[in-house]
Amino acid sequence: MRYIFKNLVLFIILFSTTTQIWAQDLTTEKLNNYRDISEKIVRSALIENKGYRLLEELCKIGHRLSGTENSLKAINWAKLTMDKMNFDNVWLQKCMVPHWERGNIEKAIITNSKKYNGKSLSIAALGGSIGTTKSGVTGEIIEVQNFEELKKIGEKAKGKIIFFNRSFDMGTSNTFAAYAGGVNQRGQGAIEAAKVGGIAVIVRSMTSKYDNVPHTGIMYYIDSLTKIPAVSIGLKDADLLSEAIKNEPDLKIRLDLSCENLPEAETYNVICDLKGSEYPNEIIVLGGHFDCWDKGVGAHDDGAGCIQALETLELFKRLGIKPKRTIRCVFFANEESGSRGGLKYGVYTDTSKEIHLAAIEADRGALTPRGFYTNANIQMVAKMQDWLPALQNSGIEWIRPGGTGSDISPIKKCKALFGYAPDIQRYFDFHHSENDVFAEIHPREFELGSAAMAILAYLLSEEGL
Amino acid sequence: MRYIFKNLVLFIILFSTTTQIWAQDLTTEKLNNYRDISEKIVRSALIENKGYRLLEELCKIGHRLSGTENSLKAINWAKLTMDKMNFDNVWLQKCMVPHWERGNIEKAIITNSKKYNGKSLSIAALGGSIGTTKSGVTGEIIEVQNFEELKKIGEKAKGKIIFFNRSFDMGTSNTFAAYAGGVNQRGQGAIEAAKVGGIAVIVRSMTSKYDNVPHTGIMYYIDSLTKIPAVSIGLKDADLLSEAIKNEPDLKIRLDLSCENLPEAETYNVICDLKGSEYPNEIIVLGGHFDCWDKGVGAHDDGAGCIQALETLELFKRLGIKPKRTIRCVFFANEESGSRGGLKYGVYTDTSKEIHLAAIEADRGALTPRGFYTNANIQMVAKMQDWLPALQNSGIEWIRPGGTGSDISPIKKCKALFGYAPDIQRYFDFHHSENDVFAEIHPREFELGSAAMAILAYLLSEEGL
Repeated sequence: MRYIFKNLVLFIILFSTTTQIWAQDLTTEKLNNYRDISEKIVRSALIENKGYRLLEELCKIGHRLSGTENSLKAINWAKLTMDKMNFDNVWLQKCMVPHWERGNIEKAIITNSKKYNGKSLSIAALGGSIGTTKSGVTGEIIEVQNFEELKKIGEKAKGKIIFFNRSFDMGTSNTFAAYAGGVNQRGQGAIEAAKVGGIAVIVRSMTSKYDNVPHTGIMYYIDSLTKIPAVSIGLKDADLLSEAIKNEPDLKIRLDLSCENLPEAETYNVICDLKGSEYPNEIIVLGGHFDCWDKGVGAHDDGAGCIQALETLELFKRLGIKPKRTIRCVFFANEESGSRGGLKYGVYTDTSKEIHLAAIEADRGALTPRGFYTNANIQMVAKMQDWLPALQNSGIEWIRPGGTGSDISPIKKCKALFGYAPDIQRYFDFHHSENDVFAEIHPREFELGSAAMAILAYLLSEEGL
Repeated sequence: MRYIFKNLVLFIILFSTTTQIWAQDLTTEKLNNYRDISEKIVRSALIENKGYRLLEELCKIGHRLSGTENSLKAINWAKLTMDKMNFDNVWLQKCMVPHWERGNIEKAIITNSKKYNGKSLSIAALGGSIGTTKSGVTGEIIEVQNFEELKKIGEKAKGKIIFFNRSFDMGTSNTFAAYAGGVNQRGQGAIEAAKVGGIAVIVRSMTSKYDNVPHTGIMYYIDSLTKIPAVSIGLKDADLLSEAIKNEPDLKIRLDLSCENLPEAETYNVICDLKGSEYPNEIIVLGGHFDCWDKGVGAHDDGAGCIQALETLELFKRLGIKPKRTIRCVFFANEESGSRGGLKYGVYTDTSKEIHLAAIEADRGALTPRGFYTNANIQMVAKMQDWLPALQNSGIEWIRPGGTGSDISPIKKCKALFGYAPDIQRYFDFHHSENDVFAEIHPREFELGSAAMAILAYLLSEEGL
């Protein structure tokens, strides 16, 4: 019996893509129809490449750092682009965001060294870091791997530049776990360093690519502690520095940074709708975050996610598909340095009379599709397994419980949130760095992502939850 | 009841990676042990990057076109590399292979045109094509999309250069199906053209990348028909040519090719073993094909597959893993232009006293892992579903019925054949062209492929079939 059961399960798994055996909620006729529509969506996305071309346009505008003039140019482009597409409703949702700018000066020079005097290191100020005065910050280096080690060093760290050099764990296939395992150095490093009297922080870049490109990202201060400048450093120079201070412990670095925190600035979520034909008041949100760091142009993080969301609506229009429920695209503001856009939209949904059925966020880059993570309950996840045959055409293999997206999680009254999950092996090669450019987007992988989101949105719209 | 059953199935699928519910053949203890070993393999592969570095070395030797001097250099490197690794048995298996060389002259010039006179087109002789005399081949162009269209044109095609311009179908996510849908133009084009009196063939490159790089590959003749030269053309020039002959139907092209078919040459499969500790006479073959086309250096096709197979054995040695059955690595000769290496090894297994349990071929490039195709019977496939939790760490999501590999299919007495299935969206961007270089290999994606093969080989070795 157990054997029979096992083979039955296997049979279901192996052949669920070609025959409709284990779907009780979905008739064969309906599923075949969904598969036809899925094929049309994939074909149109891959052949037309419209989203890919839009992303190229967007990337030409440059970075979209929260609060900057350039980000407003991009927001203006987004609004105009949505207007031109004739969606039912295009609007801007205002929010205030932190405004930090890098400025022109960003230097780390080795001094007091026989071997490396005058050498410039490849660094980038972390987002939110204070700058230095005109005389810079100069100090000896203390290298540590983590906060515990720093605490043990204690007094000896006083007056020094703290160098957090813990590596991104290259030994796991889960690059997001590797990132999570190192990122507290970047986020909390300046706080921990200030506690022991450090005068600045240098953090090894959180990246899976062994080059010399520094990767930026948000860092935090606590008001009760001295605020000290914080920068990231490229991996090659991190290794060089680590080696250099072993040989010359009194080697110093002079940091000069012009970055500064400015008053909060006004910015906008950019929103458009494709109205549902039967339940226009029921909303399926698709989105990504429109802001990005100022190194690179945020092609993968997260221009891609935004344009994939937008392309979903455009694909429906292009193909004459009329979803029953309203499909909404939101370009969320400020995910990288405060998530104010996501929070603002969440507050809006608290009192809105609209019903939010589902929300899908794409914020893991635009590599080849693999699956969707969801916070849906087990019954809903069960129901959605029936949909996989219609999704597999876009490369989607699974819908699994897992983390969804930081911009959509403030939507409290939502039946299910989803996070689009493409492949992640290359993502941290470019994340938050000058490597994150349009040339790193593969048209087919990007377009299959648009198709995957469109198919899931369509199924949600037709089947509900 | 049906609902309960469905949720049960779902539960099994969703949580089979973390709990051991549906595996009847495999105890929890055993599976946990396999998962530990799997994690060690993945970690070591990703951190050491040994296979990746070996592939870099190999690619520096240059192309490995069957029968050429350069291919023998590479074979020599392979033998020495295996020797240095101290495997139990390293040997060369001789076989005779077709020997075709491109030579230095490869030109297609537009003549008899107002707009494009003297323009050089981006072309590459197809593998096996005859060359031209010193006076070249000059003729008007007949463009067709397929053989049916050519047959209809009939007599009018006589004395003309036949331009097969059917596109690679960009609208499907199955790039191998797209390739298969176009490749008869390349393989059979010269035969069909000769039937109607064509004097040469130009074939649109079978590629998913819109650039101007010509993609080569094997073509065939029939002895009873005139042999005519055949070349592929880059997509941009294919489009230019198509447009140009619409405006100037009497435009001509002059082809000059120095390629030639030489007498068959001696070459070798390169083979090494890691002897099994319990059943040394039971063999699990891992391999790829070592030959490649002379455009590019066959980094993805199929240097990667060979080195991933080799790295499997090296990973076992590196980690002190002692498989019960013998793991054999075979670098097959001549897959691209005759599969003589695969055939030779197949004949060897016909009379060998060894028992071939399984064979795994990697010949779909080195992009991120997705699954394994197999010809195993349903009971074996059922058994192997239990192994997925140990494979998922390397990115493998499934083991499914499907095509395996052309080099291993001549192994008739083998319980199960497997084809390693990485992602395929980018593969035909480089396949058979100068784009297929080491720079296109991503270290993590490549190494996860080695790990995936090593884990499957280990499971087969421990569990049998």
